[in-house]
Amino acid sequence: MQALHWDGHKLRFESAYPSPESRIDDKGSRIVGATGGRPPTAVGSIALVKVLLAGICSTDLQILKGYMGFTGVPGHEFVGSVVDGPQDWLGQRVVGEINFGCGVCDNCRRDLARHCPNRRVMGIVNADGAFAEYVAVPVANLHPVAGSISDEDAVFTEPLAAAFEILTQIQINPGDEILVLGDGKLGNLCAQVLRLTGAKVTALGKHADKLAAIKRTGVRTIQLNDWQPRLFDIVVEASGSPSGLALALSAVRPRGTLILKSTIAGKHEVSLAPIVIHEISVIGSRCGPFPDALDALAAKRVAVAPLIESIYSLKDGVDAVKRAAQAGAKKILLRP
Amino acid sequence: MQALHWDGHKLRFESAYPSPESRIDDKGSRIVGATGGRPPTAVGSIALVKVLLAGICSTDLQILKGYMGFTGVPGHEFVGSVVDGPQDWLGQRVVGEINFGCGVCDNCRRDLARHCPNRRVMGIVNADGAFAEYVAVPVANLHPVAGSISDEDAVFTEPLAAAFEILTQIQINPGDEILVLGDGKLGNLCAQVLRLTGAKVTALGKHADKLAAIKRTGVRTIQLNDWQPRLFDIVVEASGSPSGLALALSAVRPRGTLILKSTIAGKHEVSLAPIVIHEISVIGSRCGPFPDALDALAAKRVAVAPLIESIYSLKDGVDAVKRAAQAGAKKILLRP
Repeated sequence: MQALHWDGHKLRFESAYPSPESRIDDKGSRIVGATGGRPPTAVGSIALVKVLLAGICSTDLQILKGYMGFTGVPGHEFVGSVVDGPQDWLGQRVVGEINFGCGVCDNCRRDLARHCPNRRVMGIVNADGAFAEYVAVPVANLHPVAGSISDEDAVFTEPLAAAFEILTQIQINPGDEILVLGDGKLGNLCAQVLRLTGAKVTALGKHADKLAAIKRTGVRTIQLNDWQPRLFDIVVEASGSPSGLALALSAVRPRGTLILKSTIAGKHEVSLAPIVIHEISVIGSRCGPFPDALDALAAKRVAVAPLIESIYSLKDGVDAVKRAAQAGAKKILLRP
Repeated sequence: MQALHWDGHKLRFESAYPSPESRIDDKGSRIVGATGGRPPTAVGSIALVKVLLAGICSTDLQILKGYMGFTGVPGHEFVGSVVDGPQDWLGQRVVGEINFGCGVCDNCRRDLARHCPNRRVMGIVNADGAFAEYVAVPVANLHPVAGSISDEDAVFTEPLAAAFEILTQIQINPGDEILVLGDGKLGNLCAQVLRLTGAKVTALGKHADKLAAIKRTGVRTIQLNDWQPRLFDIVVEASGSPSGLALALSAVRPRGTLILKSTIAGKHEVSLAPIVIHEISVIGSRCGPFPDALDALAAKRVAVAPLIESIYSLKDGVDAVKRAAQAGAKKILLRP
């Protein structure tokens, strides 16, 4: 974490790794970034956004350990105000999708820029992020934020959209029994979103205080110490822990579904025989639909404010990141 | 393999492991068998089947290494003739589904006896199998074999049904690009079945002779040495090798599907981050529909005879199993 520093306007991180590719291959990912100069991009107009609030996410903490070999300004959860760009966006309060597609490949043309093989990803792959006074974002990635949504709520749009992604991937029936593994921010948001479907949602985690917060949203909770093995129709692995996968697999009923939400850097050592024997469907789930998240925030159908621990000044970002990395930390926000 | 012996009527295997449970837990499976005496079962009438031919499968070889802690008569691929049982089945040539459900649990009542938590599995869990002169099979598990299907073809019904299982689990479109990883018996059958859908199927394997056999069925083939990374809509992992998973994952397009067919005993060490990053669906696939397999054999839409290496006398079964365990062996059959 010594390589993260405040330069007077932004937090900058120098990766100890020589090039993005070497790390990316190591992770088994096929994202290929540019090695220097301008990355290949055809994203159209760019807006300059004055950052109002940014959130520190577990992925940021992994990036600061070398994940993706990223060098530059981290940060991909933000709400801001457009200060330069197309006329009709000026002054608009916005959030922004984080995958910047090339605009010309098959995926981009099929509206799947999130899976563009040449994509840059804000604060993650070849694009500076939001731990800064200003961030540049393709206009195509922006979404206006309704006046009824506070900055403190709007900054959760990106992770909340990731929770909504699950609903675009699988059919959930009202009587389904769903287990969410993990009581962190992602687990909390997934549990709240899944509960909107009418399914019976149970959250399983380690932390009494975090589980209590989830329980207040109407979700059943079980502390890990009290866990008695049983089977669920759907299990969501959002623990962020390598050991979560085996537990998650053991809780899926035959022909049930396991949603993988946590991106674990490094290798799992796990028996995958249960996937075959019980014919389980394991579905990876990443970024999701911003409009669904913004609608839920505007209608106050999801409570995100209880997830916030504190707001640091951006110039104290190095301390903020240290706090965010401590066990049991809740969401840390940065205000420029 | 010293623990496998011929007793004059059947091949019997004594597991070195103390109880089924201890091995099954180790595998992460939730199958719980009876520890002694009669297992819990409510399968209805039983037929006694005189075995005409039985096939040695990779699972049998794993069982002889201790998989499932099985003790008894192995063998779950067979064709036979009913010699005792309900009047209308007497003399009928039959094949048999291998999962013996309890008949009373939720899964059994939903016609999912294959996933009954108390099931016995022929030659695998708490039920004697077909490497014998006679095998006992619940009548509910039997399927008559049309006269147009030879014994040598019919004995492939069980593995061929496992290949057809894929078609019951996912939607395959005629233009889909499918990669089958593995040129063994399972890979061969999967490639042939998938080709019936009109998809573009490519088989990737190590063995020139086995690939040549697959190519003769109209499937494109690539030898592993010539593999150039590229992406497929659907990848089927049927290599039976722990290293197959990482290669399979790397060949699935974003939002594509990976079918896991191989049951690998032991743990994988693999990065699962690509599943999340590329939002891949990983679907475990095990036993399948016998009627589909029998229809395909009757219509000669699938060629299984080229998979046979030789037919041993059952009394030479110990030698037959030794040959089946050698690298490059094709299907070894046993005739009582």
